[in-house]
Amino acid sequence: MRRSLLLLFLLIPSFALAEDASDSINMVWLATAAALVFLMQAGFALLESGMSRSKNSLNVVMKNYMDVCIGTLIFWCVGYGLMFGTNVTGWFGTDGFFPNDAEPMTWGVLLFQTMFAATAVTIASGAMAERTRYGAYLIGALVITGLIYPVYGSWVWNEDGWLAKLGFIDFAGSTVVHSVGAWCALAGIIVVGPRLGRFDKRGEPREIRGHNLTLVALGGFILWFGWFGFNGGSTLEASVDIGLINLNTQLAAAAGAVATVVLATLRGKPILLTETVNGSLAGLVGITAGCATMMPGYALLTGLIAGVVCVFGQQLLLRMKLDDVVGAVAVHGFAGVWGTVAAGIFFIDDPFNSTIILVQLIGVISAFAWTFLTALVMYLLIALFFGLRASAIHEQRGLDLSEHAEIGYPEFPMQTAYTAERATDMETRG
Amino acid sequence: MRRSLLLLFLLIPSFALAEDASDSINMVWLATAAALVFLMQAGFALLESGMSRSKNSLNVVMKNYMDVCIGTLIFWCVGYGLMFGTNVTGWFGTDGFFPNDAEPMTWGVLLFQTMFAATAVTIASGAMAERTRYGAYLIGALVITGLIYPVYGSWVWNEDGWLAKLGFIDFAGSTVVHSVGAWCALAGIIVVGPRLGRFDKRGEPREIRGHNLTLVALGGFILWFGWFGFNGGSTLEASVDIGLINLNTQLAAAAGAVATVVLATLRGKPILLTETVNGSLAGLVGITAGCATMMPGYALLTGLIAGVVCVFGQQLLLRMKLDDVVGAVAVHGFAGVWGTVAAGIFFIDDPFNSTIILVQLIGVISAFAWTFLTALVMYLLIALFFGLRASAIHEQRGLDLSEHAEIGYPEFPMQTAYTAERATDMETRG
Amino acid sequence: MRRSLLLLFLLIPSFALAEDASDSINMVWLATAAALVFLMQAGFALLESGMSRSKNSLNVVMKNYMDVCIGTLIFWCVGYGLMFGTNVTGWFGTDGFFPNDAEPMTWGVLLFQTMFAATAVTIASGAMAERTRYGAYLIGALVITGLIYPVYGSWVWNEDGWLAKLGFIDFAGSTVVHSVGAWCALAGIIVVGPRLGRFDKRGEPREIRGHNLTLVALGGFILWFGWFGFNGGSTLEASVDIGLINLNTQLAAAAGAVATVVLATLRGKPILLTETVNGSLAGLVGITAGCATMMPGYALLTGLIAGVVCVFGQQLLLRMKLDDVVGAVAVHGFAGVWGTVAAGIFFIDDPFNSTIILVQLIGVISAFAWTFLTALVMYLLIALFFGLRASAIHEQRGLDLSEHAEIGYPEFPMQTAYTAERATDMETRG
Repeated sequence: MRRSLLLLFLLIPSFALAEDASDSINMVWLATAAALVFLMQAGFALLESGMSRSKNSLNVVMKNYMDVCIGTLIFWCVGYGLMFGTNVTGWFGTDGFFPNDAEPMTWGVLLFQTMFAATAVTIASGAMAERTRYGAYLIGALVITGLIYPVYGSWVWNEDGWLAKLGFIDFAGSTVVHSVGAWCALAGIIVVGPRLGRFDKRGEPREIRGHNLTLVALGGFILWFGWFGFNGGSTLEASVDIGLINLNTQLAAAAGAVATVVLATLRGKPILLTETVNGSLAGLVGITAGCATMMPGYALLTGLIAGVVCVFGQQLLLRMKLDDVVGAVAVHGFAGVWGTVAAGIFFIDDPFNSTIILVQLIGVISAFAWTFLTALVMYLLIALFFGLRASAIHEQRGLDLSEHAEIGYPEFPMQTAYTAERATDMETRG
Repeated sequence: MRRSLLLLFLLIPSFALAEDASDSINMVWLATAAALVFLMQAGFALLESGMSRSKNSLNVVMKNYMDVCIGTLIFWCVGYGLMFGTNVTGWFGTDGFFPNDAEPMTWGVLLFQTMFAATAVTIASGAMAERTRYGAYLIGALVITGLIYPVYGSWVWNEDGWLAKLGFIDFAGSTVVHSVGAWCALAGIIVVGPRLGRFDKRGEPREIRGHNLTLVALGGFILWFGWFGFNGGSTLEASVDIGLINLNTQLAAAAGAVATVVLATLRGKPILLTETVNGSLAGLVGITAGCATMMPGYALLTGLIAGVVCVFGQQLLLRMKLDDVVGAVAVHGFAGVWGTVAAGIFFIDDPFNSTIILVQLIGVISAFAWTFLTALVMYLLIALFFGLRASAIHEQRGLDLSEHAEIGYPEFPMQTAYTAERATDMETRG
Repeated sequence: MRRSLLLLFLLIPSFALAEDASDSINMVWLATAAALVFLMQAGFALLESGMSRSKNSLNVVMKNYMDVCIGTLIFWCVGYGLMFGTNVTGWFGTDGFFPNDAEPMTWGVLLFQTMFAATAVTIASGAMAERTRYGAYLIGALVITGLIYPVYGSWVWNEDGWLAKLGFIDFAGSTVVHSVGAWCALAGIIVVGPRLGRFDKRGEPREIRGHNLTLVALGGFILWFGWFGFNGGSTLEASVDIGLINLNTQLAAAAGAVATVVLATLRGKPILLTETVNGSLAGLVGITAGCATMMPGYALLTGLIAGVVCVFGQQLLLRMKLDDVVGAVAVHGFAGVWGTVAAGIFFIDDPFNSTIILVQLIGVISAFAWTFLTALVMYLLIALFFGLRASAIHEQRGLDLSEHAEIGYPEFPMQTAYTAERATDMETRG
């Protein structure tokens, strides 16, 4: 008896260790994942800059650089509280603003969620590139991170949110992050209008080629890399589940790219780097909602279909005369919708259950309704009171000079006519 | 008595926590390491694209982008089963194909191993760059990830493999991954032949310069970064051993680069960026087999010699009229052989033991025999029935246009003649 | 009773597991953080190369590539012992050189500290770019990593160091790493002198534009990413504190960038990419000392002021006719001083305590005195006996050709006159 008690007391520090260790492990994973998600900003910047013309390459990057900065500050000020504060109504949080004192783990969660907010906001920058004023874009970024994103987020990821209570499944944010970002982008490109020369007099699209496709591929790789933190980190703790989550992520990304290559081959079209990279990103967006609750075979299928959705989605937008420079609406919006529905269809515990699928549809539709409408009003107000679109002369000279008085490659002579000329030749391609 | 029992029951959840935590920690490290290894694909893409001419820069990147996609899917379908399934004969696994249901930790291991398979296959893309047809390359990638790599892998990393039973040491894959990839590359460059103009009429090599050396350096840095996951992650669990492993990795990489710089200085040659980056990669390849079982001083020495092996190995290939665009055979093959032997020579528990060194040699030779022969047959069959080499007109115009109808830098005018002209001037250099 | 004892014995292996696990977790975090800090080398290389002219772009990258290699080897040989060895006097360590046998955890710490040493040394490469001889730079790098950095480091981070005993707060190295690197850079640019044409005949600065600003932004993103390992990893163990540390890091970086944008807007100047990126880096440098001991609100304020310090600091240097190509002295030196003082001012347990602030000032001043003087003597000796500055003809043709016989972009025609011509136009800007 005495011996057993003695042992117990000797052992108690070990227990304490084990418990502390558990928090530490969780924080290690959260911090690692947050860093990976942060790097996605670099991925977006490269992808978007590479797909833009050189005369706007810095401006795009600077939109990415500053939206993460503004987003970080505003999310700390109000976003986090709106999203994760006490949520009596189920529609938004009402406390936790300007957090300056909290439990240690809370800081880790805030850090991770800050990176998510910055991801959502940066999606619009690519779609609206090459003709949107810098200041106007940043005002939009501020409203998205401070209001639009956290309010919808509070419906799903705040445990008292109304969609959370319905059982809506969006593990890492196919809808909460990617579709929300994409619907903001959609509102933005509608209000700001297409780039000069993007559609010819008959309304047919003219291709405007990105200036540096190596950067596009690098951006794609970096985004894919960061997604292992985005999806894997959404456990918010160290967990054996990360294995399945990130395996599903990998399979869906690969399948999304393969889908575009197979599709291009079947249709007798060239295998484009831009389309292939977007295919893998569509696969990643698609698996984001259901990565934790799907078997690998279904993850592969989800990614495959996401790649197809993305290709045809981009064509649909073009037919609607909408000019999305990087294909963000198709990649993050349409593939996000598909992925969120797929998370219901292939839900591991109860696949093909129509009630679950219905809830998924409610979540998807409410995301579109809230985000698209508020973003549309916001961009209209910005256009009215501040001016959203750069002047034609600035657009022609490039926003790098007009907004930043810098150019991306001062020693490299550029063929400014080249793109326009070739664009005519390429007109027939999708 | 009662009190002690009570305490025990109170404590039991803590025990459970500690045990679960252990799996969670292992998964955190496995997922982190897998992500790092994935990013090596970006490193390869940049290195290979930067060392190629601009007219093929996208094609190289697209080979990297798609081989990881195809590799991921095929490794899930058959590769993992072949490599890690029940291995009665010692020569290959026979179950575990299309895994859709497994223990949580298994998903993490599968994810990590998928990244390894993708690394092995991508090595060939750089060596065979600038003249290999896209579809033909992808067929090769499919066979390598689905057959050649996992079969050899099952000899070493399947606990019932015949080389595993001999005690062959290849901790993270100097041979299993890097040499296997390099021998595939060697077979490929033999079958596809050198680029047009790579050797002049007398058979002397003419230098063809890479179009973007900043990308080469960035690729080198990213590969080095990813190697901390490649070697460190090969513990397959959280472990204090990661410290020594990654310190050895760092020392060997640094020593490999220093070796090339010292060698160039001693020989009165310029200190080339390309050669220096390859030197560090040779150091990394060299330490990969023995990083867990070598003292730091020997790791440094292994890296140093690997750098020297790489420089002279590349010269040997040129003398044999073999055109390896990025030096992959020297970096991954020759340095891999040296590293695998070094893992035996400097084996921490029993250094300079001739029996151990003999086993290492058997492993190295069997890797060459299996891989080189199967890859040679494969590329010959592809050449015969499908066509491996791009047409001369496509090669001259560049594979970006002929294979993808895109070009890397549409706004930048290029000096296509420049490289050829300068190549003549540089002819004397190694 | 018997049952309880039985249970206890059954449970003992679990305790052992928990304790081992703790070391393993610590190593996982240390290895992850070390890898992130390593990648900062790529960030520095891109930032510095992008801010240089294309004719020196490889040379800058090669300085980064080789200083990490040389730094790694020399820090293993002597640096680590000097810094962390037995420190009887409080001024330097006297054992632990060429470590070849140690506790497993020690290897992890050595790896992490190696990355820190490499960071300190690489700061000088950017400041002194475009006119410093390659060999001379590498000799300097060797002395900094082998002597200057570890000696000062032993004062602060060796538990027996005299500044450590005073209670000097520099958690992750605003002073130990960044200021030390910056004061070496300051000594270097004084001895080597400004680039040809950097100041006109009246002594007014002429802007020399970087050749690739997309790379600058990518470098900034990668540095920011790496900083989560730099600051978060300075716990040297898995810990819940990482959350606050990295949140503070994120807030300060964002605030630093926002400060430069607001400042430019207020002053009616264009929002420059280069200045914005440097602003975020200044925020990061600023928070490095106090990231573990500051509330988020103060971290934000620290970053904000660091951004302002950086902008005016760079102007001060220009007025003193000092040519710092990338602004390293302002970013790492001046913001480092501010950050170290801020760590005292906003010290969480006892803010605004004049004694603490005084100790911080002593630490800052002693860093300047030791580092600047030794580096000045070193560069003067190198200039005298070896030659520090490239010849005018080499400087005009570019160091890529003269030092490495390679050029960065052989297929891209360059407008060498462009920069100089435009520089005149831009003369009025800061």
